[in-house]
Amino acid sequence: MREKAEIFKRRVEKFQRLLKENEIDGAVIRTLSTFIYFTGTKWLRPSLLIPAEGEPVVIVAKGEKELFMQRSWIENVKEFQKTEDLMAMVTMWIAKNGYSTIGMEFSIERDAYILFYELFKKLNPGVQIEDIRHLSMQLRMIKDDWELGNIRKAGKNAVKGMEVAMEEIKPGKSELEMAAEIYRELMLNGSEDPKVYVSATPRAHAEPFRDVRVEKGRFVTVVIGADYNHYYANLTRSFFIGEPNERAKNAIEAMEEVHKIALEKTLPGVTFSRVERDIAAVYREKGLQEYYITGYTHGVGLLIEEDPITTIVVPHRAMKAREGMALAMVHAPLMVPEGAVKKEDTVILGKKVENVTPFEASVFL
Amino acid sequence: MREKAEIFKRRVEKFQRLLKENEIDGAVIRTLSTFIYFTGTKWLRPSLLIPAEGEPVVIVAKGEKELFMQRSWIENVKEFQKTEDLMAMVTMWIAKNGYSTIGMEFSIERDAYILFYELFKKLNPGVQIEDIRHLSMQLRMIKDDWELGNIRKAGKNAVKGMEVAMEEIKPGKSELEMAAEIYRELMLNGSEDPKVYVSATPRAHAEPFRDVRVEKGRFVTVVIGADYNHYYANLTRSFFIGEPNERAKNAIEAMEEVHKIALEKTLPGVTFSRVERDIAAVYREKGLQEYYITGYTHGVGLLIEEDPITTIVVPHRAMKAREGMALAMVHAPLMVPEGAVKKEDTVILGKKVENVTPFEASVFL
Repeated sequence: MREKAEIFKRRVEKFQRLLKENEIDGAVIRTLSTFIYFTGTKWLRPSLLIPAEGEPVVIVAKGEKELFMQRSWIENVKEFQKTEDLMAMVTMWIAKNGYSTIGMEFSIERDAYILFYELFKKLNPGVQIEDIRHLSMQLRMIKDDWELGNIRKAGKNAVKGMEVAMEEIKPGKSELEMAAEIYRELMLNGSEDPKVYVSATPRAHAEPFRDVRVEKGRFVTVVIGADYNHYYANLTRSFFIGEPNERAKNAIEAMEEVHKIALEKTLPGVTFSRVERDIAAVYREKGLQEYYITGYTHGVGLLIEEDPITTIVVPHRAMKAREGMALAMVHAPLMVPEGAVKKEDTVILGKKVENVTPFEASVFL
Repeated sequence: MREKAEIFKRRVEKFQRLLKENEIDGAVIRTLSTFIYFTGTKWLRPSLLIPAEGEPVVIVAKGEKELFMQRSWIENVKEFQKTEDLMAMVTMWIAKNGYSTIGMEFSIERDAYILFYELFKKLNPGVQIEDIRHLSMQLRMIKDDWELGNIRKAGKNAVKGMEVAMEEIKPGKSELEMAAEIYRELMLNGSEDPKVYVSATPRAHAEPFRDVRVEKGRFVTVVIGADYNHYYANLTRSFFIGEPNERAKNAIEAMEEVHKIALEKTLPGVTFSRVERDIAAVYREKGLQEYYITGYTHGVGLLIEEDPITTIVVPHRAMKAREGMALAMVHAPLMVPEGAVKKEDTVILGKKVENVTPFEASVFL
């Protein structure tokens, strides 16, 4: 992504202004998604140091510098030979510059681990640590045109994955066998870190089991998170296998209605909890409220689930939808005994709502 | 894994004794690998509460209880409908039982996130938190026969994946295209959460890129982590594409020698740093010390990399190898400009050293 250097540079400058406004001397970025946001490339064990003023620094393992510099615009790249050297380099950067307040992201993702956090505190005893997750997310929540282009491509990829899913779902097949073919399809189309959940039993989020198989009289739910240039789009469909009973039919109808409400009503300026109330009303009306999980939408971008996360971060439910957001909805499944019923698309909020994962097919297999 | 109930129950009892010895009232287990260790099954968003005395409790999402109870021996299973309820249930468990010291694992894995940790501290202000990662790992580090059986099966699966890798590696192919076929093979053989790293450039750990392609005159390194019943085996090979130069030949020879030393000398009772010194000597002798990364071995089990982690946890280098350990070696690649050179197998330390990923093939493609 070197050719996009200007985009990434501007992001760092905006972020530095936020650091200054919040009286934070520098940020230690260890989460992959924010690392990509600023550097333009993924890397295993992300280590990016952004001072409130001055040049950002990236630390990579011995021998990796050349490729990293081909993929990122950042020029201040250091190599470490032992893990303990990496930690020492961070500590030295803080000490040498005399920083007293350091920002770190208290995130829900890979590398935001308690171990590193506690170790950092031990190595930098005088330094105050501030959670800056909201600062990076404040920028990341609103996508620019290049990001939206990536999300559209990811959406097309997700649709291809769902087409493979429909071919694969058959009584007797295991969740894992179906997932294997979907993963392959997504990767062959350029998805570097796809997430595929397949559930033939009622599970809210289902990492596939090798010994759970498709049975008649149940739903199979396929959740696809496809990425392109590290940006995700999510697409979920539930298929009923065989002849549905009344409760299954009722659940399908309710999910269709709720999906329609979500996509029509989640417009820039509208509070998420406002739409959530309308959704709850539909479930109540249909006598399904006991199967309902709160939190109908969340952002997508460099993470499959990012701010606004009305699903698990309660205060986000009071936020307003904004232009430039990319949102997955309906995220929360209806957990009836026949399975997890869910219809989820990824939409971009512009002047209009644009569905980037259009997929129409019968839910009856 | 209900049929193995006795194994899991005994583990919990042993762990409870450790909690008592360390004056910890109860443990809040949120990491997937330890959750599996005690419950016998994976679950998305693991939440397991183990009191120092009494019955363990598992909390799952609404509707998931039935399947969970089919897969685990644990009978005290509660459901939550909103994420905030989950947190509240943990807090109530602590308050109701009057616990003052709670154990949590400060781990390097999914779900051991700083966000949850900080939120926990806010919700449970009077409670003292102790890191108990070493307590669960103390048990997990030494594998029983059932675990070793799983690791052997995982090893067989890894070998199948490497056979597919050899068919796939061709000049012009992208890292991601090769990984797609390897992932599929591993999953179709029952691996539920495989990890495949393919690198056609020198990277220490390489998540595949869609736009990095195999070139002549370089190494392609394939790292496979295959799992069976959640237990991993690791297998890595580096293949040289085309005619190797002197440095590449020298690196291959050194890696062969170091691999042999590692497998022959890492015997029960031997300190890891002792073997590491012999390895360093080989690299020095061959003039390769500048390409060498410290940390030749780590445990494998419910994580692809777990204690003893001589790779990144410095104090573990002073530990001794013990019977019942499953270890991957040589983990650290030799990072020459032509690529990351690595030969890694998974071995079980019994009376003898048993290689569970035997794979012999020419390194020249």
